[in-house]
Amino acid sequence: MYDFTIYVPTRIHFGRAQISHLSELRESGEKVLLAYGGGSIKRNGIYDHALSILKEAGLQVFELAGVEPNPRIETVRKGVEICRTEGIDMVLAIGGGSTIDCAKVVAAGARYDGDPWDLVLDRTKIRSALPIYAVLTLAATGSEMDMHAVISDMTKNEKWGTGAEALLPTMSILDPSYTFSVSKKQTAAGTADMMSHTFENYFSFEEGADVQKRFGEALLKVMIKYGPIALAHPDDYDARANLMWAASHAINGLTRAGCAPAWCVHPMEHELSAFYDITHGEGLAILTPAWMEHVLDVRTAPILAAYARNVWGAAESDDLEAARAGIQRTRDFFFKTMGLPENLRAVGITDEQHFEKMAEKASAACVNSFVPLSKEDVIEIYRKAF
Amino acid sequence: MYDFTIYVPTRIHFGRAQISHLSELRESGEKVLLAYGGGSIKRNGIYDHALSILKEAGLQVFELAGVEPNPRIETVRKGVEICRTEGIDMVLAIGGGSTIDCAKVVAAGARYDGDPWDLVLDRTKIRSALPIYAVLTLAATGSEMDMHAVISDMTKNEKWGTGAEALLPTMSILDPSYTFSVSKKQTAAGTADMMSHTFENYFSFEEGADVQKRFGEALLKVMIKYGPIALAHPDDYDARANLMWAASHAINGLTRAGCAPAWCVHPMEHELSAFYDITHGEGLAILTPAWMEHVLDVRTAPILAAYARNVWGAAESDDLEAARAGIQRTRDFFFKTMGLPENLRAVGITDEQHFEKMAEKASAACVNSFVPLSKEDVIEIYRKAF
Repeated sequence: MYDFTIYVPTRIHFGRAQISHLSELRESGEKVLLAYGGGSIKRNGIYDHALSILKEAGLQVFELAGVEPNPRIETVRKGVEICRTEGIDMVLAIGGGSTIDCAKVVAAGARYDGDPWDLVLDRTKIRSALPIYAVLTLAATGSEMDMHAVISDMTKNEKWGTGAEALLPTMSILDPSYTFSVSKKQTAAGTADMMSHTFENYFSFEEGADVQKRFGEALLKVMIKYGPIALAHPDDYDARANLMWAASHAINGLTRAGCAPAWCVHPMEHELSAFYDITHGEGLAILTPAWMEHVLDVRTAPILAAYARNVWGAAESDDLEAARAGIQRTRDFFFKTMGLPENLRAVGITDEQHFEKMAEKASAACVNSFVPLSKEDVIEIYRKAF
Repeated sequence: MYDFTIYVPTRIHFGRAQISHLSELRESGEKVLLAYGGGSIKRNGIYDHALSILKEAGLQVFELAGVEPNPRIETVRKGVEICRTEGIDMVLAIGGGSTIDCAKVVAAGARYDGDPWDLVLDRTKIRSALPIYAVLTLAATGSEMDMHAVISDMTKNEKWGTGAEALLPTMSILDPSYTFSVSKKQTAAGTADMMSHTFENYFSFEEGADVQKRFGEALLKVMIKYGPIALAHPDDYDARANLMWAASHAINGLTRAGCAPAWCVHPMEHELSAFYDITHGEGLAILTPAWMEHVLDVRTAPILAAYARNVWGAAESDDLEAARAGIQRTRDFFFKTMGLPENLRAVGITDEQHFEKMAEKASAACVNSFVPLSKEDVIEIYRKAF
């Protein structure tokens, strides 16, 4: 096990009616910037409910509406501007990971003397942030309990992750019933996203980090069990609760600290989203089995076989055969059980014109990954997934 | 899954040479009360190393030496007195769970206007505490990352647990190499203690908390794998590291939040320690299989069978048979593999004279447990373990 530091100070209120805890925002001041997306929180009543609690607690609410699914730097800049002109004390995101990510960089931008895009390109510039709060409405990214944020500049076809301790939310409210209304498409994409986070931390050559590896398998088993139940029965509370809580743990450091994974499927997907603005979780599902197949060899087989056996119960005694069975089960789970789009063409990517440029950028982030990927490797994976 | 709030803000520095982070104590002030036990930290050099770092950081060190294995309220009072007279800013425990528990109640006592025993009897009285820091030298109780403390008043044969958010350590340093010198006896007892914590959270009728249950099984598998390795090879780093990290997660809320377990083996053991001052982990190992056998019936069989199958790989299809196999495996693991004392007589409890009184006190804490235990049940379990 490698040395590590872990720090996860976010207070989580999990369950039904926990939104009442929004009154605790009063501890951070008076003026709150409320960030949200396309307005679904207005249709399902969460917006009105939240506002009444905030106002009753004596909070003055300012709004940053219309945060995009792949949140844009322009929206971050707009939020920072409100913080500066209104003297905002804290940021509250109500929504999924995109809204929370946007709120995080707004919170850091408000304490940074410069363009917030600097903070996306260079995480070491994030020294401080306004207190960040979240009410989660989609189980997927884990942003509610981690220090990461992903922001896009579509004018440059760039989508980058950033992160710092200052971005750790002070408090997050996780009410699984808020995800009853999440569409089948988003439920499936969210499940793929949280599984992908777990995979990215799980696959490494590091030996001796059993706590982390067994936790990763625990999370995958929960996601595989409850993903299909949530699809079939959108208001099954335990399915939504387990997916929500598993998603938070998939990326809060629990399965990563002490290991040395360098992610690679996420960097490859970020390029897809940056160039084609597709749904992140769908892109991950499409790339993951193609990536697994690409990296499978005698050296990686024992690790992929352990995944196949411990998560899927694969009985094959030969590592290569077990690994292949595990990849096939993954493929079937994503594309048959969860109904996710099977290839890039199915999400509207019908030409290879950007592959070269995308692969060049992605491969720069895959130098130290489980199996280091060259530009040519990444192109091959894109083609395999095409 | 039940509603819950979870908050684990302790910063963990895990690995070799992490003790250098003691310089961060400077953030909490200047005067530190250093609590430790019988002096093993002087023999193995940790004491000197810690002191040099603290002094270099400009900290003034006061000492509370001689904290007992079952820490006494008299020692807590002595620590509180030093805090008051010297104007101590923070408390640093270097040791195992007993030392950390003692330091926690000292830290709370320093901010409480009255006898610290009040804080042991009534946790709601703990409103505040000095910042608490820990350097862990024994993997067992998980006190380094939780809000609990157990203190004894041997003049009254009383041993009670208390707990509050204010008792959560600010930072804990977990260096597995510090546990290389832990004796076989304490290694085995520590493994039994962390397994017992996991059991106490794991066994409940609550359905639908899969994340927590799979995490519990993950921890048990790690403990069962690495306990014997640590016994055979005391300086196996990965064995010590996995045991240390598993122990922290066994009781920091991860496997408990969202479930509704009420512990029962711990209350029964606390009476043993209160009357006979035995090693806590040994008492737990002795009582656990006796308790499992006592509560096994058609209603509990599916839950004990799930434990047997998911942790031990039991193949029996009948629940009762699988459950019995799991209990036998537990028994064999504790008493054969780990060499723990098999019954109460083996730890010097040679008469039943206090069973009645002990059972009366313990059963009061077992009213809402997995299987509620009456005074007669507890006596029967003591006898079964005799």
